[in-house]
Amino acid sequence: MFTTVLVANRGEVALRIARTCRELGLRTVAVYSTADRDSAVVRFADRAVRIGPPQARGSYLHVPSVIEAAIATGAEAVHPGYGFLSEDPDFAEICEANGLTFIGPPPRVIEQLGDKAMARTLMAGAGLPVLPGSTGALATPGDAKETAQRVGYPVILKAVAGGGGRGMAVVRSEEGLLPAYHSTRAHARAVFGDERVYLERFIEDARHIEVQVVCDRHGAAVHLGERDCSVQRRHQKLIEESPAPNLPQELRERMCQAAVRGALAVGYVGAATFEFVLTPDHRFYLMEVNCRLQVEHPVTEMVTGIDLVREQITVAAGRPLSFRQDEVRPRGVAVECRVNAEDPARGFAPTPGLLTEFVPPGGPFVRVDTHAYPGWLVGPDYDSLLAKTVVWAPDRAQALARMDRALSEFRIDGPAVRTTGAFLREALARPEFRAGTHTTGLVARMTEEPVATGR
Amino acid sequence: MFTTVLVANRGEVALRIARTCRELGLRTVAVYSTADRDSAVVRFADRAVRIGPPQARGSYLHVPSVIEAAIATGAEAVHPGYGFLSEDPDFAEICEANGLTFIGPPPRVIEQLGDKAMARTLMAGAGLPVLPGSTGALATPGDAKETAQRVGYPVILKAVAGGGGRGMAVVRSEEGLLPAYHSTRAHARAVFGDERVYLERFIEDARHIEVQVVCDRHGAAVHLGERDCSVQRRHQKLIEESPAPNLPQELRERMCQAAVRGALAVGYVGAATFEFVLTPDHRFYLMEVNCRLQVEHPVTEMVTGIDLVREQITVAAGRPLSFRQDEVRPRGVAVECRVNAEDPARGFAPTPGLLTEFVPPGGPFVRVDTHAYPGWLVGPDYDSLLAKTVVWAPDRAQALARMDRALSEFRIDGPAVRTTGAFLREALARPEFRAGTHTTGLVARMTEEPVATGR
Repeated sequence: MFTTVLVANRGEVALRIARTCRELGLRTVAVYSTADRDSAVVRFADRAVRIGPPQARGSYLHVPSVIEAAIATGAEAVHPGYGFLSEDPDFAEICEANGLTFIGPPPRVIEQLGDKAMARTLMAGAGLPVLPGSTGALATPGDAKETAQRVGYPVILKAVAGGGGRGMAVVRSEEGLLPAYHSTRAHARAVFGDERVYLERFIEDARHIEVQVVCDRHGAAVHLGERDCSVQRRHQKLIEESPAPNLPQELRERMCQAAVRGALAVGYVGAATFEFVLTPDHRFYLMEVNCRLQVEHPVTEMVTGIDLVREQITVAAGRPLSFRQDEVRPRGVAVECRVNAEDPARGFAPTPGLLTEFVPPGGPFVRVDTHAYPGWLVGPDYDSLLAKTVVWAPDRAQALARMDRALSEFRIDGPAVRTTGAFLREALARPEFRAGTHTTGLVARMTEEPVATGR
Repeated sequence: MFTTVLVANRGEVALRIARTCRELGLRTVAVYSTADRDSAVVRFADRAVRIGPPQARGSYLHVPSVIEAAIATGAEAVHPGYGFLSEDPDFAEICEANGLTFIGPPPRVIEQLGDKAMARTLMAGAGLPVLPGSTGALATPGDAKETAQRVGYPVILKAVAGGGGRGMAVVRSEEGLLPAYHSTRAHARAVFGDERVYLERFIEDARHIEVQVVCDRHGAAVHLGERDCSVQRRHQKLIEESPAPNLPQELRERMCQAAVRGALAVGYVGAATFEFVLTPDHRFYLMEVNCRLQVEHPVTEMVTGIDLVREQITVAAGRPLSFRQDEVRPRGVAVECRVNAEDPARGFAPTPGLLTEFVPPGGPFVRVDTHAYPGWLVGPDYDSLLAKTVVWAPDRAQALARMDRALSEFRIDGPAVRTTGAFLREALARPEFRAGTHTTGLVARMTEEPVATGR
């Protein structure tokens, strides 16, 4: 086992990882940009190294600075969290070249699955259902047109190097195709440094169901059940839960088995998430595979009792998984709400600023993963996630009541800060959500914005 | 079901109860003394009524004020929490006389079990093992001497109206008996308004094991397993856990069955705790029965997934228990540490004062029940409990590592405030505690104070 782990991230997830490191008896090294010098993880970690300016490009995305910090502090492993360098195969490779264990899958696997078009092909080959769409990236505008015609409208354009719901556009008829083709390429070039896009059939009124898988270096692959993440605004998740409501057991089992099959097919190691779209007539199709810890992993932890970060670390150290499939016994229902520093009334625009007051909820079966505290300055440079609020209860009705209670007791104040708290409570109260019959269109229906607006 | 519940308490437990009330869709009424006007539960509750001055005698213990607040706000039920009026049979009776449901057992049961000497007799009659001791209260100094001689030294003197570890004295030889007899009577008169004391054999190196029981009005009595509360300073619990370590399953089962038998014998309704002393050679004896929610109830909640306050309320409303005995399936290990505003270096003297900083721990499988927040003034009028820190993990070693991590991340500051945080971490690290072989003498050995000082 390692003695020192560097956490190459910031915010709530950096703290969350450092917590498990400490529980494992590992020394933790935090890295931080100048904007984050007073952050919770910097206070918590055994050491903290400043790696650059607020702009992520010069700090959290700046590979040499991160590697240098790891070497200088004697770290033996690097946990990338989510976002930033977590799905960068080059970073994983440079870690290994410098004798650092990258806590995640092998670079080759990240590369294969990170290319979303290649992943489609690969997973189809492993027998997983994929949506009709392009084979690989679209070569030309003509290719786009032809493919869209073949699969039928509506279609969705996605960046090959994308993921996490960013940079997508739904196109409903041929008129919209070329403008969307060009704009998604431009966006992909700007954000991912790779302009390639691909195209799939778009399913209306679908549900987003994803399966958590963990694998060790000894050939074991175990699923930890599924999460329903259908409450999204512009393909960004707001509410997640496990298990998925109204999912027949036989269908759940088939989806979970498909994910395990996919993981085994690529020789996966670590934690992976297989994201599926589930149609109203109960067909499921793979959307993408995420090679990292997911923001919403706590709901899986609360129903299974398994610390996913712990498994990621021990598996990276070469240990076998600490459980077999038949030892995973989900209990009850867990729900997560993302309380963001955003103004739902202004299209979820970020509201950075000082937190003069921050009192999170507590009490029975409530978990809050947050890096915020009174006096914390929510900066404009990073995403707007303030506090993941997760609850557990024996059944879904109680879990929803508990979540509403938890959200009701947040005390967050600051001259500029608004939060999604009230909006989330409204979403929880919607009859379709309460019935568990909602689809990815819920938030759009609530805000009366078009179903999908691109990014 | 009720629509409005008055919470006749303060601090963390008042907030904890109000949280469950809200999850049940009930309106909650808080009552508060002038010292608590800015308390968390006052902010949280739907209504709050000032009932008197900081001194509990004029507020939280002042029955007419509490009843008046309940009637004025249209409350239909009163939850007494722990301490204060929670085990006062007169209060329970006055509630009922005013058409208010007292959330707890019938007044008659409180009375029988609240008289600790009578409870001994009653429970012995139901077949529960009790320690050799006096039959009822000691009538005279001579009676005390004679009884002590009969049962053999060391003995422990306890207030008949006591409970919760307060006002006890261990006596090791005849010289000490009469002074202790007089001092415990004086203490009992001052604190409980009832000078009667009784006497039992005192077991050295014992463990404190208690069993949680819940009963409904329909004759069902279910145990929720046991808690080990052996880490105590002067008979006050500091660390509690469930399940008890190194407790043979057969013995656990016998203790739990004894508790259920005791509850059924008195027609118990609601949540009760049967406190046992467990000897090194695995004999167990009933110490007392507590007719209320216990401070340490969260450890039971975390291993069973059951919300005890919810059961208390629904049972008080006449509903059957929401589970059968065979549906209670404990999972993993939970540990609670009481972070008090006290200075362990000065004999755990309370350290009231302003909290300038208060950031509780969070993250996976950590629950913090607290009413504290930055700016909160820890008053001198009430007990010194700041934050109950509860963790869960699949096994005890992981739970202890998690607790240490959680305690390490508290950020509590204020000009005068000291906490038990560091002391608790020290206790967790003691080899005997880690091995689960510790007894109630652990804290005394740590602080090198006499094993038991009465007080």
